Amino acid sequence: MTELTGKIVLGPHQYGKAENRVVRIYRDTARHEIRDLNVSSCLRGAFDEAHTVGDQGGVLPTDSQKQTIFTYAKTHGDGSIEQYGQALARHFADDIATVESARIEIEEYAWQRVPVHGGGHDHTWTRVGPEIRIAAVTVTGTGAAQREWVIGGVKDLVILKSTGSEFAGFLTDEFTVLEPAYDRILATSLTARWRFATDPQDWDATYDGIRAVMIAEFATLHSKALQQTLFQMGQAALEAYPCLAEIRMSAPNKHHWSFDLSRFDVPNNGEVFYADDRPYGLIHASVLRADAPDAGTAWDPYTGAV
Amino acid sequence: MTELTGKIVLGPHQYGKAENRVVRIYRDTARHEIRDLNVSSCLRGAFDEAHTVGDQGGVLPTDSQKQTIFTYAKTHGDGSIEQYGQALARHFADDIATVESARIEIEEYAWQRVPVHGGGHDHTWTRVGPEIRIAAVTVTGTGAAQREWVIGGVKDLVILKSTGSEFAGFLTDEFTVLEPAYDRILATSLTARWRFATDPQDWDATYDGIRAVMIAEFATLHSKALQQTLFQMGQAALEAYPCLAEIRMSAPNKHHWSFDLSRFDVPNNGEVFYADDRPYGLIHASVLRADAPDAGTAWDPYTGAV
Amino acid sequence: MTELTGKIVLGPHQYGKAENRVVRIYRDTARHEIRDLNVSSCLRGAFDEAHTVGDQGGVLPTDSQKQTIFTYAKTHGDGSIEQYGQALARHFADDIATVESARIEIEEYAWQRVPVHGGGHDHTWTRVGPEIRIAAVTVTGTGAAQREWVIGGVKDLVILKSTGSEFAGFLTDEFTVLEPAYDRILATSLTARWRFATDPQDWDATYDGIRAVMIAEFATLHSKALQQTLFQMGQAALEAYPCLAEIRMSAPNKHHWSFDLSRFDVPNNGEVFYADDRPYGLIHASVLRADAPDAGTAWDPYTGAV
Amino acid sequence: MTELTGKIVLGPHQYGKAENRVVRIYRDTARHEIRDLNVSSCLRGAFDEAHTVGDQGGVLPTDSQKQTIFTYAKTHGDGSIEQYGQALARHFADDIATVESARIEIEEYAWQRVPVHGGGHDHTWTRVGPEIRIAAVTVTGTGAAQREWVIGGVKDLVILKSTGSEFAGFLTDEFTVLEPAYDRILATSLTARWRFATDPQDWDATYDGIRAVMIAEFATLHSKALQQTLFQMGQAALEAYPCLAEIRMSAPNKHHWSFDLSRFDVPNNGEVFYADDRPYGLIHASVLRADAPDAGTAWDPYTGAV
Repeated sequence: MTELTGKIVLGPHQYGKAENRVVRIYRDTARHEIRDLNVSSCLRGAFDEAHTVGDQGGVLPTDSQKQTIFTYAKTHGDGSIEQYGQALARHFADDIATVESARIEIEEYAWQRVPVHGGGHDHTWTRVGPEIRIAAVTVTGTGAAQREWVIGGVKDLVILKSTGSEFAGFLTDEFTVLEPAYDRILATSLTARWRFATDPQDWDATYDGIRAVMIAEFATLHSKALQQTLFQMGQAALEAYPCLAEIRMSAPNKHHWSFDLSRFDVPNNGEVFYADDRPYGLIHASVLRADAPDAGTAWDPYTGAV
Repeated sequence: MTELTGKIVLGPHQYGKAENRVVRIYRDTARHEIRDLNVSSCLRGAFDEAHTVGDQGGVLPTDSQKQTIFTYAKTHGDGSIEQYGQALARHFADDIATVESARIEIEEYAWQRVPVHGGGHDHTWTRVGPEIRIAAVTVTGTGAAQREWVIGGVKDLVILKSTGSEFAGFLTDEFTVLEPAYDRILATSLTARWRFATDPQDWDATYDGIRAVMIAEFATLHSKALQQTLFQMGQAALEAYPCLAEIRMSAPNKHHWSFDLSRFDVPNNGEVFYADDRPYGLIHASVLRADAPDAGTAWDPYTGAV
Repeated sequence: MTELTGKIVLGPHQYGKAENRVVRIYRDTARHEIRDLNVSSCLRGAFDEAHTVGDQGGVLPTDSQKQTIFTYAKTHGDGSIEQYGQALARHFADDIATVESARIEIEEYAWQRVPVHGGGHDHTWTRVGPEIRIAAVTVTGTGAAQREWVIGGVKDLVILKSTGSEFAGFLTDEFTVLEPAYDRILATSLTARWRFATDPQDWDATYDGIRAVMIAEFATLHSKALQQTLFQMGQAALEAYPCLAEIRMSAPNKHHWSFDLSRFDVPNNGEVFYADDRPYGLIHASVLRADAPDAGTAWDPYTGAV
Repeated sequence: MTELTGKIVLGPHQYGKAENRVVRIYRDTARHEIRDLNVSSCLRGAFDEAHTVGDQGGVLPTDSQKQTIFTYAKTHGDGSIEQYGQALARHFADDIATVESARIEIEEYAWQRVPVHGGGHDHTWTRVGPEIRIAAVTVTGTGAAQREWVIGGVKDLVILKSTGSEFAGFLTDEFTVLEPAYDRILATSLTARWRFATDPQDWDATYDGIRAVMIAEFATLHSKALQQTLFQMGQAALEAYPCLAEIRMSAPNKHHWSFDLSRFDVPNNGEVFYADDRPYGLIHASVLRADAPDAGTAWDPYTGAV
């Protein structure tokens, strides 16, 4: 390769308002409901001149996007985060002339009712986590040419099994000093994102169901590697949910090392571990249907949060 | 005041090994149990010469403390974090000649069994949070002169009520522009630490009970201020648990501001809020019994985690 | 779209060891040097059976990758992070039969010598940041078919100008309430990544030079929008460095809002601001040469850190 | 000890507005200046009834404190953070009837001018860190009975020496497996806080000077332990600055472990280390003058940031 002399031009670009912290309370009856969200909007389109000559004539301010996000929480926020994202993405694609494609990314933080008198309190909750439900909706074009992709998912789902996991029979090279393991802790902090082929009837129930299928598979499969576990988890979810086209997973292998107590004449048969921070194995895997429709720009990221 | 010319001397000092990430699996039957801990040890005593002349003769290495922490997870880790902390603190105070006082601080991360086939899985869990159980045990002296203080608690307990909270009738000055609020969201991320007057029969059940009493009080009390809510929460816990001498709470007032939708002719009757990050009100309050025993060094901190 | 019934198959996958914290000291003379790194390795290739049937026969353990990373810090770590990354990526692509492509991502933390006696100390440094130098090297194939892409960059470069920035003439819709600004603070935490068309003579000097050109452009350009500023920064870097093919930038618009002091009869002419956390505008932009060579898999991410 | 039956009463309490992110630009000439601050106010006093009966009559809203903090950035913010803190603390103690004591805690983030044309740019800066300058001012009472304490300091000052450090001759017990080290990396992320006995002439120069003395001592002292290094650093600062009464330091021992390359027949003579995250040694030490005036409530914390 050599040094370059070609003309310098603008490449791909996008912009929006990131991390709008929307809390929506539903208080039509004494039994309130809550949705606690982090919403980001991203616009792609005819914004070249904002870059090349500083002309903002086609640029909808990110503040206007923020106002829209909060207003839609009232006017279009009665359903799931996927539906709220659809409403927002369609609005920007349909109603703002310079927008060719809009992407809405949402995180939802879970809350559970405080237990009082044998039931859940009407208007008080505690946060539950660390896992976070996520969604990303991309809408491109208008009218008959409009296309739409919906991704749902979960991130920071920390899951651990204390047995039923091994790692052996691996490739070795001159730097291999690792011993095979036949009974180890397997733990990860899973991010899984699933692309819908079609809209399910009930987005919230579908989220709960996919999550449940995946963690049950993690629990019950005897694991020969985190890779195998991830594939089986994705396969199980796709089998159970034909509305899904594809699942992508990112999973750090959170190492738990057996602590050497033998120096002190204390036995340690898989009982005392130290949980290491870094480094960690990091696996990315995807599972999809052979007849999955084209992903288009479904996976083109914005904030990195989804 | 004037400039000083006095002799320069060593003041208070302490040291230890912070943040040992211990995971303890109990696998005596097919139904495993897990305790996931972050343990810090702190020693106070005759370590002056390590500072003043670099003589380590009285200094037990922090690595030795780490080895002890992991070993005790096997040999003394069958109970609650308070009991495990007692075992460690007593050991350092009793067995290391230069130690005058030992403090053990522990964080415990909660896990719940994965639901499978209508029950919890034997050896697979997901993390639950964000709240973390905490404990701090301080043991001073040896033999008949030995004294011990145990603190339990919870941190990062995020709790929110969507109504039943007001803030009005406050003092005003020339910088006061705040309007009184008669129906607002009240939310906090509570850290509460309670000092035991005597050891309860069941440390784990006591933790669960204190936590439950406090969040029920938060839910059911009509709040005139976060200060009032905290006092009532502490009072309720002390009333229910006579084993407690004192409760100290730190509570950020996590502001949720009503978002102005009126500009767009959309009503917002306590339905759409933005959750602000900073600044935040921050309240510290304590509630205690008039006959509480002397706190001694119970509250002298080490890592700040407890 | 409809529900899917197609065969479920494995999609794209990759794995490696993330966040190896390598500190390399050069002590051949009394004047030591330091390189403080966070290194991640990522392998892509013939690992399907690890996923589909749990067969690890083609999988080089992530621990072996870690051993290689630390060993190469001694044997191949005498130059820049780009060169160290090249050595590692070439090794995995050349020497591990199942590897089709290897990607090495590196963060480098900067240190500066402690000033003593009018010069820098021989073996003591303080960390400087928050900005972090980054690199990502991807090597695909072997022998004559081998291809290689090198990305350098900087992340978390926080830069602010207190005047010389405006935002006006923008598109408006029914949610637009923002007023145009003719003199505002412009601030961002820049991540910029540049793809090399050819290897420069001196990687470290090239890093310093690109960084300097970009921040000088940020300072001296009268900004009509962050988009324009980013484009000009990228253009300036490409003009100065013909070894570069392309620059990609991610830039949050860190809002600084003028604080309303007029209620207290205190003037505030661009003097007192509050720095808001969220939400923030977020701009992604890229600048490239018309004759830039194919990017191949240069930008396919692994950890997200680079 | 036994269970308690005594009356339940309110204990110590305090409240305020935490983490006001104030950015102050000085633009009286074309050469601007910047101060970038995180300011927290804390009031102690006659607020019992806010807790016990929910009466806010004595409670100045935290919003009013915020308004004051931003207004004073214009009217009283022309000097150092110590002086700005004094103005705020005196105001609350003097002017708010229910306040018995006010504490102001401030973090200051450093910026350096962007180099252009051989000089620093007039109105553009990049952030430098990670270290943060800190201050805490406490004012108690009014009139002749008023007392005031000023603490300055630095936190997150990351410093490392690659030789000139040992750790040997330590106490051993049955859990001691650590080998003595005669040439190791010594690294910490220092928080140092110094209490003033009297106001210096130039607060900013004093900060720079104390910092310089401490890091020079860290560099030049052959260390027999981190404890010894801390003591000598504190002593050096007190000797150089007779305006100081006391220095308190918190210093994690950031472990850098030699990586074992011998398995691969590669020598490693203090050249390749891995920087471990947790656990870490954690040392707290203080150095003071024998004639130091009473510390009063100088060290009573609020946010934990200072």
